[in-house]
Amino acid sequence: MPNVFGKLFTVSTWGESHGPAVGVVIDGCPPRLPVSCEEIQADLDRRRPGQSDITTPRKEDDRVEILSGVFEGRATGAPISLMVRSSDQRPSAYDEMREKFRPSHADFTYQEKYGIRDHRGGGRSSARETIGRVAAGALARKILALAGNVEIRAFLTQVHDIVAPEDSLVTFPSLAEVEATPVRCPHPATAERMIARIKEARAAGDSVGGIIRCRIRGVPPGLGEPVFDRLEADLAKAMLSLPATKGFEIGSGFAGVRLRGSEHNDPFIVKEGRVGTSTNHSGGVQGGISNGEEIYFNVAFKPTATITRAQKTVDVRGAETELAARGRHDPCVVPRAVPIVEAMAALVLVDHWMRNAAQNETFRTKF
Amino acid sequence: MPNVFGKLFTVSTWGESHGPAVGVVIDGCPPRLPVSCEEIQADLDRRRPGQSDITTPRKEDDRVEILSGVFEGRATGAPISLMVRSSDQRPSAYDEMREKFRPSHADFTYQEKYGIRDHRGGGRSSARETIGRVAAGALARKILALAGNVEIRAFLTQVHDIVAPEDSLVTFPSLAEVEATPVRCPHPATAERMIARIKEARAAGDSVGGIIRCRIRGVPPGLGEPVFDRLEADLAKAMLSLPATKGFEIGSGFAGVRLRGSEHNDPFIVKEGRVGTSTNHSGGVQGGISNGEEIYFNVAFKPTATITRAQKTVDVRGAETELAARGRHDPCVVPRAVPIVEAMAALVLVDHWMRNAAQNETFRTKF
Amino acid sequence: MPNVFGKLFTVSTWGESHGPAVGVVIDGCPPRLPVSCEEIQADLDRRRPGQSDITTPRKEDDRVEILSGVFEGRATGAPISLMVRSSDQRPSAYDEMREKFRPSHADFTYQEKYGIRDHRGGGRSSARETIGRVAAGALARKILALAGNVEIRAFLTQVHDIVAPEDSLVTFPSLAEVEATPVRCPHPATAERMIARIKEARAAGDSVGGIIRCRIRGVPPGLGEPVFDRLEADLAKAMLSLPATKGFEIGSGFAGVRLRGSEHNDPFIVKEGRVGTSTNHSGGVQGGISNGEEIYFNVAFKPTATITRAQKTVDVRGAETELAARGRHDPCVVPRAVPIVEAMAALVLVDHWMRNAAQNETFRTKF
Amino acid sequence: MPNVFGKLFTVSTWGESHGPAVGVVIDGCPPRLPVSCEEIQADLDRRRPGQSDITTPRKEDDRVEILSGVFEGRATGAPISLMVRSSDQRPSAYDEMREKFRPSHADFTYQEKYGIRDHRGGGRSSARETIGRVAAGALARKILALAGNVEIRAFLTQVHDIVAPEDSLVTFPSLAEVEATPVRCPHPATAERMIARIKEARAAGDSVGGIIRCRIRGVPPGLGEPVFDRLEADLAKAMLSLPATKGFEIGSGFAGVRLRGSEHNDPFIVKEGRVGTSTNHSGGVQGGISNGEEIYFNVAFKPTATITRAQKTVDVRGAETELAARGRHDPCVVPRAVPIVEAMAALVLVDHWMRNAAQNETFRTKF
Repeated sequence: MPNVFGKLFTVSTWGESHGPAVGVVIDGCPPRLPVSCEEIQADLDRRRPGQSDITTPRKEDDRVEILSGVFEGRATGAPISLMVRSSDQRPSAYDEMREKFRPSHADFTYQEKYGIRDHRGGGRSSARETIGRVAAGALARKILALAGNVEIRAFLTQVHDIVAPEDSLVTFPSLAEVEATPVRCPHPATAERMIARIKEARAAGDSVGGIIRCRIRGVPPGLGEPVFDRLEADLAKAMLSLPATKGFEIGSGFAGVRLRGSEHNDPFIVKEGRVGTSTNHSGGVQGGISNGEEIYFNVAFKPTATITRAQKTVDVRGAETELAARGRHDPCVVPRAVPIVEAMAALVLVDHWMRNAAQNETFRTKF
Repeated sequence: MPNVFGKLFTVSTWGESHGPAVGVVIDGCPPRLPVSCEEIQADLDRRRPGQSDITTPRKEDDRVEILSGVFEGRATGAPISLMVRSSDQRPSAYDEMREKFRPSHADFTYQEKYGIRDHRGGGRSSARETIGRVAAGALARKILALAGNVEIRAFLTQVHDIVAPEDSLVTFPSLAEVEATPVRCPHPATAERMIARIKEARAAGDSVGGIIRCRIRGVPPGLGEPVFDRLEADLAKAMLSLPATKGFEIGSGFAGVRLRGSEHNDPFIVKEGRVGTSTNHSGGVQGGISNGEEIYFNVAFKPTATITRAQKTVDVRGAETELAARGRHDPCVVPRAVPIVEAMAALVLVDHWMRNAAQNETFRTKF
Repeated sequence: MPNVFGKLFTVSTWGESHGPAVGVVIDGCPPRLPVSCEEIQADLDRRRPGQSDITTPRKEDDRVEILSGVFEGRATGAPISLMVRSSDQRPSAYDEMREKFRPSHADFTYQEKYGIRDHRGGGRSSARETIGRVAAGALARKILALAGNVEIRAFLTQVHDIVAPEDSLVTFPSLAEVEATPVRCPHPATAERMIARIKEARAAGDSVGGIIRCRIRGVPPGLGEPVFDRLEADLAKAMLSLPATKGFEIGSGFAGVRLRGSEHNDPFIVKEGRVGTSTNHSGGVQGGISNGEEIYFNVAFKPTATITRAQKTVDVRGAETELAARGRHDPCVVPRAVPIVEAMAALVLVDHWMRNAAQNETFRTKF
Repeated sequence: MPNVFGKLFTVSTWGESHGPAVGVVIDGCPPRLPVSCEEIQADLDRRRPGQSDITTPRKEDDRVEILSGVFEGRATGAPISLMVRSSDQRPSAYDEMREKFRPSHADFTYQEKYGIRDHRGGGRSSARETIGRVAAGALARKILALAGNVEIRAFLTQVHDIVAPEDSLVTFPSLAEVEATPVRCPHPATAERMIARIKEARAAGDSVGGIIRCRIRGVPPGLGEPVFDRLEADLAKAMLSLPATKGFEIGSGFAGVRLRGSEHNDPFIVKEGRVGTSTNHSGGVQGGISNGEEIYFNVAFKPTATITRAQKTVDVRGAETELAARGRHDPCVVPRAVPIVEAMAALVLVDHWMRNAAQNETFRTKF
């Protein structure tokens, strides 16, 4: 099941870059959840290209349709099938890709793996595939909001070498603060510099990457498993499953290596009547299991592979050649990845919530 | 199945820190694989404590026993059950843990999750759990070696703030170079400084963390799935499933954020008669699928949580108190994690090899 | 993943009786498989109601649409999403069901399980759900036909108390022989009596059940696992997962209980140059694994629960009441289940073929 | 994972007929469950050979050892590893099997599938493999007993052509009634005839099969999924996964085919203040989901394949030959299968209980 995510709240996405539609089937959704097209659409609109002058002007209408699993505004417990028809197919723009492998794209690896390749765009390794994730994530976020006031907020802390100062990131930013600029960095001065850097890259026919931080509050203790399915392991997998990601770190992350144990350990204290920690180098997870503190992590995105500058490559017959992307492309996809990161985090949390409940709450009062 | 790793080459570990034994069941092992106790034991010996004067003097004998699935020296295709009896149980040393939560350990989260806790040591979040992973990894590495000369080599590049210079890490190190020092850093001068830093931490009743790099060569193109089960996503999960890990990066990783697309993209070239790339910022994976280049990644380990200096904490009744680990503990677990990182990488690769074969080779000549 | 079937050739169906569409996502399809709408449609047409004067006159157009995973007539290895829009929605005909539980339907159990219920028709427990299975089965049968001339033929041997004589069932029937009558019994005289019995049931506002036999030839030895995932276990699950089924037997089945071991054992002989058996009480499976002989099994279907005669029941408030189905219903669904049985058998075989290949062929030449 | 059963309450058995030990790992066990060696041993003792003069005199000591997952008499939530050492290994008795395929055993299919075969006994297709199932089933039955007074009672209704009269089987038999005779048929007169038939078969060097009925009361409504994972589908799979089984039927089963819908439908009535049915042709499951009525099903077992009479077969080189089992063998394994049927039913129910809870109870009060 290479295209399925989750064990109990199961999400299967389908659809390619240039097919007639993309979609997702959510299996295992708790019944009676209020489900509305409008809420799902609101999340989809956040990931859509063409939202500002720093993203690709390609228009995607992305109207979601609910095909099953919802009756009179509520989930029935049956699979929820969501579909978005594609409106902006221009396969002719991709004729050159039939012959040439785009550098740092999946063209070559698809050909090697499958012996066949839909050369129009990135196939499954396409930003369009993430529509299904965001739609499913909208349901997951709804569940988390109703179940326990869990809030998930992702935002940019870095574009290329423009880094938001840590002291500007101390408070949990509001959605409005994140959405205030098209780069989704809650620090306005940094956001301005990021925008300038992205425009400069576009002008040069080039691209830049960035870092997204995700902060999650309200997660109860107990989510995650001690060994393979540690909460941070599943978050890492979720994030590295996104196109263009190259790294993940939780809590103190790579920088934590430079601390000593006596500095890094989070002392337990009594906090608002419950056991908490006075620092949070752990990032809200200890022994693979949430401890009730804020969960936070960073995800590194490489610069977009599609650039309009000419690049060296080889063609399908193995001859060396050159390639330059035509049309206009997104010089930095990271801002649009913010809702996708939030969606994936939500999917991980709901799945672990249900798993934890199954083993640990089902018979809790019985023995 | 919270304690199972892999979809086709499936590994289930069992056993706790202070139980009578730990073990692993490997299900789906290809039949006729030569399996010997000696080879498995050799890998186990590499992860064992008590190997040098920088590790814990706790003695673990760790003799592996093959209980099923092997007949006349070869795997039969049946589940392979491996067990290691525990010899060094000293539960009395842990009486204090019954009452007090150790900071940055899993004591508190276990109690919250399960409502019951084996207070002796870390339960499942114990280094002993990794015995099963290493034993299973020994089989996986054997498969990879026989199948295609895949070589997996992990080693330390950093301890605390001691960092091996990048130019000392250019060539693929031999096993002998890695094993030359107890810190498993192939650069002797750095290794010496790392050892000094670890001894210094121990003398201070403190601990330090580090970074492991893993390099893998010989992986054929085509392993990994385009969407959720991307090869780097499964490697990230595998690594973050190890105790004490806080970060993972593949290829250019977090540093790649500072490159432009034109710098980061890996141009395709013809290389020894096949399609290859002239740089390798991708880290051997493109679109989630191996491209035949070397795979390399870094894993960040926090400083060991167990320290002998007194720390603030709370007890099971919620009262604030102090705790200091007694006995002698490993001031830096990272060197011992080297064979575990290799084992987990091997498990990911064999599983993806089999998955790729099932979908893409089974009927290859038929249509 | 309650709506997913298969481990490697994974089939997820979605859609309810009276939703806007039903569909299926096939994940893990071997790439380059020729896929055509026409072939899938041909199988769908066989399961469609309104095909003859013994089935419901309800018209379902059932035009399948390929939404993903196919490029230039071949599977790409990506998920294949197939959808059939619903044309004949008459929810008003079901108003009474909002209040009353239909006997031997899933109305009551859905309400108990989910706390919410789409009262229009059977929800997921609807014949329409099987559209997705048949569509996926069409691909599976294509794979089997191309891979090894595997032929799957299901047909009726019994309707109510009308039983085809065993000596009329000795030879493997052709598709034409099965399709010759609307009851899909290859013995014409029996078929005639079955049709009469069905018409009689309809005239009485009643319904009848029946037995389907499925015969499969061309399956190579080695499919199936020795323990839980025995081939017959997965076939049993597949068949009992169909609406209205009450029993499954393979090979000698329940009648085999009356034989002694010396009568029941299938002696090995040399047959056309290979090892075979001279009898086949095993039904082509030994120790859970196919042995190369013909696989055959029977599936029992209860009489259709929907009848137009008045029946006692209770309403959603727990008051006793009466209910009679309105409109015209299928007095015997068994003939239409024939292509569904074939589809499910094909799904089981392809999945096991791929599983067997992954473990046992991937590294066959390597050790 | 060919040797794993269950999705949330996961059971992995390992070990072969003639290996040093057999065992099971139970993953996902609800924490705080009281677990005692004695209770598990009691169930194991019921499946052990050598219990009476109608079973094989082979002695198996079968002492279970708890290796992990239990602390101070309660499950911790960690994997529970149980092992039984083998005491009665006589591989020399099996030398002939190295050369000759035993008819209707798994020897030939193993060889074809794996290309290697442990010729001593049945490998994984051995009665010893079921030790792990029974041990895990003991935990599952404990959970069911504590959770809701669920009672599972299996017993023989037929041996060869000796059939217990239906009117002797009307009441739910007590454990004592079942265990009163070594054939585990609660009707004493029939039991006596069954014993005579088994002894007669043994005297003739032959074997006989039989039918086990399983009755389950106390299951709440709501267990099972509407489509693939219907409760009866998973029960069918569980039963057909047992060695020597050839058929499964639930509720009215194959005989139900001869009823009309008006006779077969189970009218809903108000029963002790809740909605129930006045008849139970459904066998306690409607639309794949338990409805609160008694669940009952039959399982057909073929005559034991091992007989001491000479049989025709071929050897590993494909030459025709003869074979007669030496030593003393069980002429009828069905009585010993009674606790195994109960164990498998318990595993299915606990797994579905947890699955149902995860999706349908976790957020029940939240929306």
